[in-house]
Amino acid sequence: MNQKRIKPQTLKGFRDYLPSVMLARESLMDVARDVFRSFGYAPIDTPALEYSEILLGKGGEESDKQLFRFNDQGNRDVAMRFDLTVPFARFASQYAQQLGTPFKRYHIGTVWRAEKPQKGRYREFVQCDFDTIGTDANSADIETLFAIHDLIEKIGFSDFTIRVNNRLILNGLLESLDLQDKTALVLRSLDKLFKIGRERVVEELVRSVGTSEGQATAILDLVSVKGSSMEILEKLDARLSGSEQGQLGVQRLRELFECCKAAGIPHERVALDVSIARGLDYYTGTVYETFLNDLPSIGSVCSGGRYDDLTGLFTAQPLPGVGASLGLDRLLAAMEELGMVTAGESPASVLVTVLDQNRIADYLRIGRTLRTSGFAVEVYTDSRAIKKQLAYANRKKFRVAIIAGDEEFGAGNWQVKDLLGGEQTAVAESDLPKVLGEMLAAEV
Amino acid sequence: MNQKRIKPQTLKGFRDYLPSVMLARESLMDVARDVFRSFGYAPIDTPALEYSEILLGKGGEESDKQLFRFNDQGNRDVAMRFDLTVPFARFASQYAQQLGTPFKRYHIGTVWRAEKPQKGRYREFVQCDFDTIGTDANSADIETLFAIHDLIEKIGFSDFTIRVNNRLILNGLLESLDLQDKTALVLRSLDKLFKIGRERVVEELVRSVGTSEGQATAILDLVSVKGSSMEILEKLDARLSGSEQGQLGVQRLRELFECCKAAGIPHERVALDVSIARGLDYYTGTVYETFLNDLPSIGSVCSGGRYDDLTGLFTAQPLPGVGASLGLDRLLAAMEELGMVTAGESPASVLVTVLDQNRIADYLRIGRTLRTSGFAVEVYTDSRAIKKQLAYANRKKFRVAIIAGDEEFGAGNWQVKDLLGGEQTAVAESDLPKVLGEMLAAEV
Repeated sequence: MNQKRIKPQTLKGFRDYLPSVMLARESLMDVARDVFRSFGYAPIDTPALEYSEILLGKGGEESDKQLFRFNDQGNRDVAMRFDLTVPFARFASQYAQQLGTPFKRYHIGTVWRAEKPQKGRYREFVQCDFDTIGTDANSADIETLFAIHDLIEKIGFSDFTIRVNNRLILNGLLESLDLQDKTALVLRSLDKLFKIGRERVVEELVRSVGTSEGQATAILDLVSVKGSSMEILEKLDARLSGSEQGQLGVQRLRELFECCKAAGIPHERVALDVSIARGLDYYTGTVYETFLNDLPSIGSVCSGGRYDDLTGLFTAQPLPGVGASLGLDRLLAAMEELGMVTAGESPASVLVTVLDQNRIADYLRIGRTLRTSGFAVEVYTDSRAIKKQLAYANRKKFRVAIIAGDEEFGAGNWQVKDLLGGEQTAVAESDLPKVLGEMLAAEV
Repeated sequence: MNQKRIKPQTLKGFRDYLPSVMLARESLMDVARDVFRSFGYAPIDTPALEYSEILLGKGGEESDKQLFRFNDQGNRDVAMRFDLTVPFARFASQYAQQLGTPFKRYHIGTVWRAEKPQKGRYREFVQCDFDTIGTDANSADIETLFAIHDLIEKIGFSDFTIRVNNRLILNGLLESLDLQDKTALVLRSLDKLFKIGRERVVEELVRSVGTSEGQATAILDLVSVKGSSMEILEKLDARLSGSEQGQLGVQRLRELFECCKAAGIPHERVALDVSIARGLDYYTGTVYETFLNDLPSIGSVCSGGRYDDLTGLFTAQPLPGVGASLGLDRLLAAMEELGMVTAGESPASVLVTVLDQNRIADYLRIGRTLRTSGFAVEVYTDSRAIKKQLAYANRKKFRVAIIAGDEEFGAGNWQVKDLLGGEQTAVAESDLPKVLGEMLAAEV
């Protein structure tokens, strides 16, 4: 029909998700949703397209270049969302009255950035944010930490560290050094400590930010305090005794560590790290970063913090909040690298093979029977040789194939083939759910 | 900070999803995913943006006007996908070799159409498609029907009818009436039968399509044959004895009904309806529509069919297939209308109230303990009056609130307040999981 064919291809910087990766992604998102819900975070969604004015309000120049922006049919200046934070600010401003506060939400959604594509970086990706807004309470900060902990643990990691800090401590220090006007610049330099090391940060502070050598050293000394989290807090308490902000920061972190202990969060998984600043200007209190100790080089997989004013662009109602964002694709990449992704290409574990096209009703019936017993079952469709059907089952990593021809139908049996071990045994049809249940339960 | 405020609003034709609706949507999508996976359909995803050429290849003029289309930063002519079928055709052409056939996929994804917004119709909505491609086998058609059945049943409906037909029967009839050249036009008229009635369809066939009065009557007589599905098939068999196509259609439908019976699909849920044509040109075999008998007026909530040539635009490899699409938002609207959506605004069922800010560690600890036992638990954040906290719990439809002050902490107890009945009882902390488990299990 169509003689002129179009080359099937995706746009530069975009990608398709094939079943094996998509199965792993969906199971990550399922875990995330379960954890969010278990804390009472409720789901919301917002449109992919917004007025450009709304998306640009805050980000300024850099976001502008990254925006997929155009005029729609009604000649409106519109753009695709580049994160979930700005749409949430718009959303919160619009519905805070109706929904009441505190308000806890999660949002798993796709965002688009016209960035230069790089290895592992795409122009379309999923963000996974959760926040509690309309409260200053430290318990919200602590529950955020608990949620980060449960997320990473339930996803399957045990050796990870959530590094926490409080911006108020850094503010207190800068205040005591008379550097409060340069907070943003200092924090941006500090953020590079992990990457470029102490010496180069000092250099940058002196040369670019304009601190004295002594101020730079004092900053680096403070953020490098060593010891247990509680020991560090003691030292900070003394160091910042003159600063109201610094004291409040110390007090809130102390409460956080006490609550972690009371609630039984393994103490090695939460560490105070005074060097953690999080470059973004809007954080004002607790900040979080999460590192996988088997793969620290990929950076933080879940980050966030407390902010005072998410919605100032849209409303006069003050809506302070605290939240974090799970780096879904970064985490997935880490899991692939660590061999934690073992999904095949099919979500089903049992394949019903087809030997005799005249018995289609029997093959389809057993498929339905097993599904009713809770198994995920695919019935093979075509009349190919059984070898080809088993090759299909192996390639897609089915766990079991069941087979029946005249002989089995006569005896009321099914041949059950273990696709891992290769053994094959005859099982009475009425015993199938039990036998399959045992075989599949034996899977880790 | 920002004195000039921006009005928080969504674009015309777009909407936000607030928690109560979003919870219902997510649970619908969860059910859909579970059912798809139980049949071995595997998830995929494709980009929101594609080359316009790829999306426009097939749809022509009408789709063009509906497209959100623009030039990106690299001056590529791009557009947002308006359905999941065209991207799947592109996807299948690109990966069929790599993935092998048969290939079963589902795709739950957002699509965008710049249509005139109407009540209940938005410019952004979610589609939920599943297909088996690379096979002609009738068992794939029958499994598609089984999947539609399980979807609607698991979502919570029991009184529904899946109406099936086969295009080959209509083709056979038109062939026998020498109308094969007018197939598309005749089918488009037939599609309106439910809406405008027999007389007006006959009128349209004669006036607009150009059939004779006799031909029009013969068509309407055939599509209105009454009786059980098997009786209708007998009559069709006789009527279409001279048509190879018609015979094949009858044979495939007969096998479908036999398999439904063998597999125990309730017979009243599947009905042959020869008038079902599905306007879309690309269907060539079995077609499906699904009606809720309590709300037939909303139209089909799950429709689809068999097609010969999904991918002709992109590849010479023939990829016949069969699939259907669940009308997620239409179904959600139906469920709201039928009072089946009862979700509150929180996914958690237990609220830990806070009487004493000095005991934050205890409130957070019990939250974590109960979560570990499998409960979804929110810990209230602020130090408001207990009345306000309970009002919050009731508004968000929590099921239980637990309360403790000095007295309870002294005795190792929690007050458990049933928010439905209002009763309040003291429960030892160690008994909490058991007591809450019983209270929440008593929920339907």
